[in-house]
Amino acid sequence: MLTIINQCLLCIYWVVLIQRIDLPDVQSSLAVPSFKLTRVGVKGVKKLAHVKRPGKKTIIPLVTTIDLFVDLPASQKGSHMSRNLEVAAEIIDISLQKPVPDMESLCAKIAKLLLERHEYATLSEVKATADYFLERNLPSGKKGLEPYILIAEARAKSTGEIKKLIGIKAVGMTTCPCATEVIRKMISAGNDAVVPTHNQRNISTLMMEVPSDDHEVDANDLIEIAENAFSSPTYSILKRQDEGKLVLDAHKKPKFVEDVVRDMLGAVLKKYEKLSDSVVVIARSESEESIHKHNAFAERVTTLGELRK
Amino acid sequence: MLTIINQCLLCIYWVVLIQRIDLPDVQSSLAVPSFKLTRVGVKGVKKLAHVKRPGKKTIIPLVTTIDLFVDLPASQKGSHMSRNLEVAAEIIDISLQKPVPDMESLCAKIAKLLLERHEYATLSEVKATADYFLERNLPSGKKGLEPYILIAEARAKSTGEIKKLIGIKAVGMTTCPCATEVIRKMISAGNDAVVPTHNQRNISTLMMEVPSDDHEVDANDLIEIAENAFSSPTYSILKRQDEGKLVLDAHKKPKFVEDVVRDMLGAVLKKYEKLSDSVVVIARSESEESIHKHNAFAERVTTLGELRK
Amino acid sequence: MLTIINQCLLCIYWVVLIQRIDLPDVQSSLAVPSFKLTRVGVKGVKKLAHVKRPGKKTIIPLVTTIDLFVDLPASQKGSHMSRNLEVAAEIIDISLQKPVPDMESLCAKIAKLLLERHEYATLSEVKATADYFLERNLPSGKKGLEPYILIAEARAKSTGEIKKLIGIKAVGMTTCPCATEVIRKMISAGNDAVVPTHNQRNISTLMMEVPSDDHEVDANDLIEIAENAFSSPTYSILKRQDEGKLVLDAHKKPKFVEDVVRDMLGAVLKKYEKLSDSVVVIARSESEESIHKHNAFAERVTTLGELRK
Amino acid sequence: MLTIINQCLLCIYWVVLIQRIDLPDVQSSLAVPSFKLTRVGVKGVKKLAHVKRPGKKTIIPLVTTIDLFVDLPASQKGSHMSRNLEVAAEIIDISLQKPVPDMESLCAKIAKLLLERHEYATLSEVKATADYFLERNLPSGKKGLEPYILIAEARAKSTGEIKKLIGIKAVGMTTCPCATEVIRKMISAGNDAVVPTHNQRNISTLMMEVPSDDHEVDANDLIEIAENAFSSPTYSILKRQDEGKLVLDAHKKPKFVEDVVRDMLGAVLKKYEKLSDSVVVIARSESEESIHKHNAFAERVTTLGELRK
Repeated sequence: MLTIINQCLLCIYWVVLIQRIDLPDVQSSLAVPSFKLTRVGVKGVKKLAHVKRPGKKTIIPLVTTIDLFVDLPASQKGSHMSRNLEVAAEIIDISLQKPVPDMESLCAKIAKLLLERHEYATLSEVKATADYFLERNLPSGKKGLEPYILIAEARAKSTGEIKKLIGIKAVGMTTCPCATEVIRKMISAGNDAVVPTHNQRNISTLMMEVPSDDHEVDANDLIEIAENAFSSPTYSILKRQDEGKLVLDAHKKPKFVEDVVRDMLGAVLKKYEKLSDSVVVIARSESEESIHKHNAFAERVTTLGELRK
Repeated sequence: MLTIINQCLLCIYWVVLIQRIDLPDVQSSLAVPSFKLTRVGVKGVKKLAHVKRPGKKTIIPLVTTIDLFVDLPASQKGSHMSRNLEVAAEIIDISLQKPVPDMESLCAKIAKLLLERHEYATLSEVKATADYFLERNLPSGKKGLEPYILIAEARAKSTGEIKKLIGIKAVGMTTCPCATEVIRKMISAGNDAVVPTHNQRNISTLMMEVPSDDHEVDANDLIEIAENAFSSPTYSILKRQDEGKLVLDAHKKPKFVEDVVRDMLGAVLKKYEKLSDSVVVIARSESEESIHKHNAFAERVTTLGELRK
Repeated sequence: MLTIINQCLLCIYWVVLIQRIDLPDVQSSLAVPSFKLTRVGVKGVKKLAHVKRPGKKTIIPLVTTIDLFVDLPASQKGSHMSRNLEVAAEIIDISLQKPVPDMESLCAKIAKLLLERHEYATLSEVKATADYFLERNLPSGKKGLEPYILIAEARAKSTGEIKKLIGIKAVGMTTCPCATEVIRKMISAGNDAVVPTHNQRNISTLMMEVPSDDHEVDANDLIEIAENAFSSPTYSILKRQDEGKLVLDAHKKPKFVEDVVRDMLGAVLKKYEKLSDSVVVIARSESEESIHKHNAFAERVTTLGELRK
Repeated sequence: MLTIINQCLLCIYWVVLIQRIDLPDVQSSLAVPSFKLTRVGVKGVKKLAHVKRPGKKTIIPLVTTIDLFVDLPASQKGSHMSRNLEVAAEIIDISLQKPVPDMESLCAKIAKLLLERHEYATLSEVKATADYFLERNLPSGKKGLEPYILIAEARAKSTGEIKKLIGIKAVGMTTCPCATEVIRKMISAGNDAVVPTHNQRNISTLMMEVPSDDHEVDANDLIEIAENAFSSPTYSILKRQDEGKLVLDAHKKPKFVEDVVRDMLGAVLKKYEKLSDSVVVIARSESEESIHKHNAFAERVTTLGELRK
């Protein structure tokens, strides 16, 4: 028989009651069928974090969306998912008082603590994204904040190994080298003439592993590298003259998505020449083609060592 | 006391049992607090529908996503939402055997039947969208299917009045008239020279009320109107020469989003000169600006009568 | 003939040159065809804003996504869209130093300034959304930040009239009253027994016009109202006992989406009894039905005066 | 010098002209910097395809969204992306007349032809998704179409090796085993009583490699497996009694996302016992938790061989 829960009278008693009873730990019961699982956790957790870059005074507020996972052995029915939220809250809420130096460190701290709290796990993984604003010199000469997206990841193993990555998404402009040369020929323009071509919004991603030694990878530098790889960076505010100059500059530097990825890789090689061969590099570029309804895409997932060959 | 439901033994008995009992109609009970509601229903219903245009042989399969609403009087606690699904299933599933002539008629039929089934409702509203493919002449001279989005709506009143709308979303290309003229001046080009400018993907929407008399509004014509209003339509396949020609053509016809909307309105006025003044027209254009991270947008919501003034 | 733009030598000269030339104002030229436009502007502008509530010390950082529009007369070819961005930057960037009291005031300031800068406009409209975190008492007794969405709007007329709205989106839980009673009957449970039913994630929206007089509408109160209208608010962290209690509480308060909307309306009436009849109220509730692949939805768009009838 | 393009007079001449000139192949020029690229191609291509299952009469129309990539050697500046669209059009447009047996074969054909057309490529990759409708027995005893998502992938190597995968996304319902047992204890209910718990919409994905031998993997079977792994499948139409029964059934079969993944894996092992050890299996389950604002997630990426250990 199921005992009636009286909403009015028993409610207070019941609250008192349940504090004494020993609640079942269903997650720790045996799994049937007993397969191990690669990743178990939570997705889409929204948290406010505070970052303060080394040597800077400003606190950067980041509205982060986080995914947190651990693996699960074949014997355990469930992962204690509330622990993921407790770990995220502990570390991120502390950041509101004591800001972390960067988002990848935040992820690494969370990944490490996830392994401690999930005693059955051998791997943990944390992924975070956040809107990010960086001061840029506008073509008008003024300064202004432009929007970007930060991406950070960390993976920890029960052996103690931790990998962390920092990355960015930047929006820029590409002008098509193919249409440029085809049209140059079609209108018999000289090699140094600026000719019309199709151009479009491009979204590029650059991610790098951050080694635990002294050589720091800064998200701002990755934004710089991505923006230099576009035909032109773009800006919120452009008055007529700035717009004209930006468009002409972009036409002098036509770029396929392939070029954007390669130029990011080239700049990464140059900028991070002291980093070790094992450092992972991910570069992606996607153009919302103005002449097509679909997008153009290029990608390289590699290591500094591979790039140096 | 709550009777135990025995999972093993009583299960079959219980199924038999419930077929005899009189189940409560909670939706029809009194609402507290008793406010009437403007729209109550379901969103995101996915259905496969079949359309066959008058005088055509081909059956067009449409994967539609539908929202269906009725109003709800202050006295009634809940709307019987399963009736919305029954109505949608009845009318759309029949279309698989006996195709409807167009998507707006499908919505109108559903809207009418919704009012019959929800005896307490005075208004019903149905919105549907679907991917749609139309054969176009590619610049290469070949024919090919290009993707569009169909939008249909219908609103019915218990007085018998029914309004239906058909609309489309088309993706095209706009070249900026402002940068064109600024750059023409900056590089001292003549008035008839094709000069570089920024261009981008543009998504335009054109919707029209479909009167119940003889004059038919055809979604294919609305697509035609939208594509003519762009600097250029776009195509899935463009070989080098076609790409060059399309880009040059688009540069000879620079368009603000404002121009795209106005040119759609102008073409609608001309095409539908026999339709009555009361016919609703909605025109929107949004450019994914290549020189900015944000979009440019223009809109006119009006009637043919207003446009004719 | 189009003058060659020499990329190397003339670049600096050219920059100097263009500062002397008089650039064309294409937007101010005549529109052909000459229809007026309802809304012209920009969408998806991302800005960081600072809000400080009256009487509070904490600065709230808001990553806002803003749409800004004005109308456009039939005579004018284009709206000067860069002015929208300048206005947004001016007002929002100042907020980083001198925080605004609330997001709807920010929108109203922008809407007002838009009309000043677009001398041809008679209407302006600003819409903003932002992730927002509010401290809540977790069931465990601890305090924690829960995520919400802020929505603010402002519309200004050249006659001086300004309307502003503040709203919120909150995520909660609903348990179905219909399945509750049907199952109560099916398992012959008593009227006060807590019986199983289907429950699901619900996203509710509550927006209110904010009059320009003393009576303030606070987004935090709207969140409070929405969370009370759910079967239960939800929390990031729930340990076993808290989870059990929350689920039982939610089962004692079953709610249709219709109930959620009506209970929000009822609470609004009570809370804002001093506000005038003309104040606009918008309440929406959408349940991601666990027993269906589609969503259930209810809405009322009205005024306090209508609700008081 | 840039020749003036006269929009009125020279337009026809110019079209004639360009048909004689030899257009530059910019993509084939040397890449600087010369890094190879992992994936280069197009994303978000929309096409209508026709599928006819072996032994069935009905033609299934599929609105597919496709991504197509090849790799690019360090020496080549650009990939000829229009070839991707030509290949997709050739194979998919033929399917409208001669339907393919399944979506993974369609992808495999495209992947193979991509390698032929991109003579510099050593790898190709094709990913496609489509809305899909399958007839199910509704609880009412009637039959009805329920919506799912098909996922197909193919990867080809220049060595001749081709891998193809077929997968599905299904929406169902999960009831929480943890809250079930905690509440059972809190309300002192017996072990066989059906007690309240939180439940929610769950979206699960099951993908399998399809070997090229006789043993066929059918998307419909994967849907069957996924729906059996939920606490309950869900349906578009549920009348009161069906709803009550479905909710009670789901409460008798509480499932973590971990359980859903494991039960899919268990059913895959049983169903495909004749398939070889090397066959890749991907199983994912995500619950839109009703008691939280975030989602719960579990995943296993593995092979049949690993599962058999």
